[in-house]
Amino acid sequence: MKARQAPMSEQSPLDLAGDDPFGPHNLPYGVFTTADEPGRRKVGVRIGNHVLDAGAAAAALGSPYAALLGGPGLDPLLAAGRTAWHDVRRALTAWVTVPAHRATVEPLLIPLPAVTMRLPYTVADYVDFYASEHHAANVGQIFRPGGEPLTPNWKHLPIGYHGRSGTVVVSGTDVVRPSGQRKAPADPAPVFGPSVKLDIEAEVGFVVGVPSAQGHPVPLAAFRDHVFGVSLLNDWSARDIQAWEYVPLGPFLGKSFATSVSAWVTPLEALDAARTAPPARDVPVLPYLDDTAEEEPGGFDLRISVAVNGQVVAEPPFASMYWTAAQQLAQMTVNGASLRTGDLYGSGTVSGPEPHQRGSLLELTWNGRDALELPTGRRTFLADGDEVTMTAWAPGPDGVRIGLGEVTGRIVPAPR
Amino acid sequence: MKARQAPMSEQSPLDLAGDDPFGPHNLPYGVFTTADEPGRRKVGVRIGNHVLDAGAAAAALGSPYAALLGGPGLDPLLAAGRTAWHDVRRALTAWVTVPAHRATVEPLLIPLPAVTMRLPYTVADYVDFYASEHHAANVGQIFRPGGEPLTPNWKHLPIGYHGRSGTVVVSGTDVVRPSGQRKAPADPAPVFGPSVKLDIEAEVGFVVGVPSAQGHPVPLAAFRDHVFGVSLLNDWSARDIQAWEYVPLGPFLGKSFATSVSAWVTPLEALDAARTAPPARDVPVLPYLDDTAEEEPGGFDLRISVAVNGQVVAEPPFASMYWTAAQQLAQMTVNGASLRTGDLYGSGTVSGPEPHQRGSLLELTWNGRDALELPTGRRTFLADGDEVTMTAWAPGPDGVRIGLGEVTGRIVPAPR
Repeated sequence: MKARQAPMSEQSPLDLAGDDPFGPHNLPYGVFTTADEPGRRKVGVRIGNHVLDAGAAAAALGSPYAALLGGPGLDPLLAAGRTAWHDVRRALTAWVTVPAHRATVEPLLIPLPAVTMRLPYTVADYVDFYASEHHAANVGQIFRPGGEPLTPNWKHLPIGYHGRSGTVVVSGTDVVRPSGQRKAPADPAPVFGPSVKLDIEAEVGFVVGVPSAQGHPVPLAAFRDHVFGVSLLNDWSARDIQAWEYVPLGPFLGKSFATSVSAWVTPLEALDAARTAPPARDVPVLPYLDDTAEEEPGGFDLRISVAVNGQVVAEPPFASMYWTAAQQLAQMTVNGASLRTGDLYGSGTVSGPEPHQRGSLLELTWNGRDALELPTGRRTFLADGDEVTMTAWAPGPDGVRIGLGEVTGRIVPAPR
Repeated sequence: MKARQAPMSEQSPLDLAGDDPFGPHNLPYGVFTTADEPGRRKVGVRIGNHVLDAGAAAAALGSPYAALLGGPGLDPLLAAGRTAWHDVRRALTAWVTVPAHRATVEPLLIPLPAVTMRLPYTVADYVDFYASEHHAANVGQIFRPGGEPLTPNWKHLPIGYHGRSGTVVVSGTDVVRPSGQRKAPADPAPVFGPSVKLDIEAEVGFVVGVPSAQGHPVPLAAFRDHVFGVSLLNDWSARDIQAWEYVPLGPFLGKSFATSVSAWVTPLEALDAARTAPPARDVPVLPYLDDTAEEEPGGFDLRISVAVNGQVVAEPPFASMYWTAAQQLAQMTVNGASLRTGDLYGSGTVSGPEPHQRGSLLELTWNGRDALELPTGRRTFLADGDEVTMTAWAPGPDGVRIGLGEVTGRIVPAPR
């Protein structure tokens, strides 16, 4: 099979409906292989339900960006910096919209089902934040009923921690149920076995392109100079393992078995129309986190949807996040920690104020008290075979939607 | 200057004193550059106070290991696996001991002062443990006086967390004093500024060579199939930043600004004579951590020395660690988390039972209560300009000492 041949339909894949969420206003980047060359990773750009072989297009059109788009990953493009990101995007826009390019570009469009999407860049460090006030308050109420829902530091800094970058996997990768120690408060000693509280966390991931030097904090205003784009992220979490291990040094094995990211990285420029003011802060912040004088609003109006076995269980609104991605970047580097190309940081679980806007089963079922009724049965936490799919969209220019793709994963049983 | 020329002394650098800690029983690996080729990273093996250009030696001697030793880093050697590690070591031993090789090898020995040592491998994920009972108990007593010194999980599992791999630096790299938020309990709000409680943590780092597959735990018995060797590690810590940020998700900016490792990685085989039984465990552990039936004792008898501005302030005994490196590896992967070549994990601060065996200033000064008197002045925590140097040695065969090199770093002021 020659996967790269043009489809035989009458209509060109470039003749998208005006409201297609993967139209020319979007142009997210990914990395794919085809069945005839499974070892050759290529940079792709999604247009409708097709993938443009961007490296081949650049070569065919004599573009100066052929090296940045030549594969096997997005790393060179990420490292190239903001001016290059803009220029490459302008070139891509022309390739998929200017009629003169059509004869060259059309044969390089591959239907999505004919490609395998890969992890699109080398993940350097992975950091996870905890930036939704609603999520943090829900977790506080669940685990410390009667106490203050937020820890004293919560409104003074975006709390974060490092996760395991080696277990970040691309959407579609199966997730093996983790085993580990757990101990209910009444148990005399911990027991070992597969997690019985396997959960999701619906998050948005930010992908760093341009490095920074050790000893030099990155200020709020430099966010767009360093961050390339956005992906969806599911921070799989074993609540029982986490609960027993996390005092005093934080989550470790309860999170490190797998973190799934969407195959498509949406460039920040595609989200310009989605920038929005974050919620009002009711506690003053220190100057390095004070974004009230920033040119651009720090929030992103991303509408997330979480489905388990095809049924939507939550619709978390990213616009409700208390801390912004720029504040998280400033926090992560204020101690002089350097950035590398491929650093990934997660927003933390996105939960809105309403019950159906909660981005984890922990919150949706209130730690198992209120089961969800799905067509596939009652669920408190995830069962083997369950498939979780997060999707999202953002408002684009002229009323179009910008699709953020999806991140999906299926739970497979723990090895015996 | 031709740094690679043989020294002009009468005696060969290969004629080491019998008790040289970098004799042919040791042979640690590093990566170096020379002044005439600062961009060309080469694999070196330390012999006495010289570095053997191992790639050049392999090429000159027609060795099959020229590719593994050809630079620019140790990554190919790390990934090559246990049999290759043994075979390369045997070859190196012959090169520096067999008289017939002397004429070839001597010109490839470079005096240590003529080289610049580099970070020897690509650090994948960095994990830090908390495995000294004495350290954990000291910290517990300092921060929770009157309470139980250890958390309830401490003797059931080796507690760990992920650190920032992008800020792991090689010995000799200056450390910029981090800034951040701190808040004393009586302060109404946090303040921002350079850390006033900059500390060290004397640790031993374990370097993973052979990867493992996601979903497949690595048992205790496979420790030597995956772990290549040992380095010294100083986990610089800003106690004031850490204290304010770490509840509930653990240390983040208080640690992520810099972690220093020794330039030399000592292969496990060089430490065979240093294997020793860990302390008796007074709480039974789950089977995946039970090392009582393992062939090899899990501990390492490494004698660490910590000096501030040239004065020894502590001599932590690594043999006193409650949890072993093999148990840490089993813990880190028991949830199915995969290993990558270049994963680095720290033992956690090494503190022995005696006051002069404590591996942090937090403990040595009891959180600043008891200042240390140094020739350079009184110290509770580190002052700008202070230089901290950790060294260590281990018993080798026939009564020789195996030197573990050093990890050193100097504090430079926070940027204004």
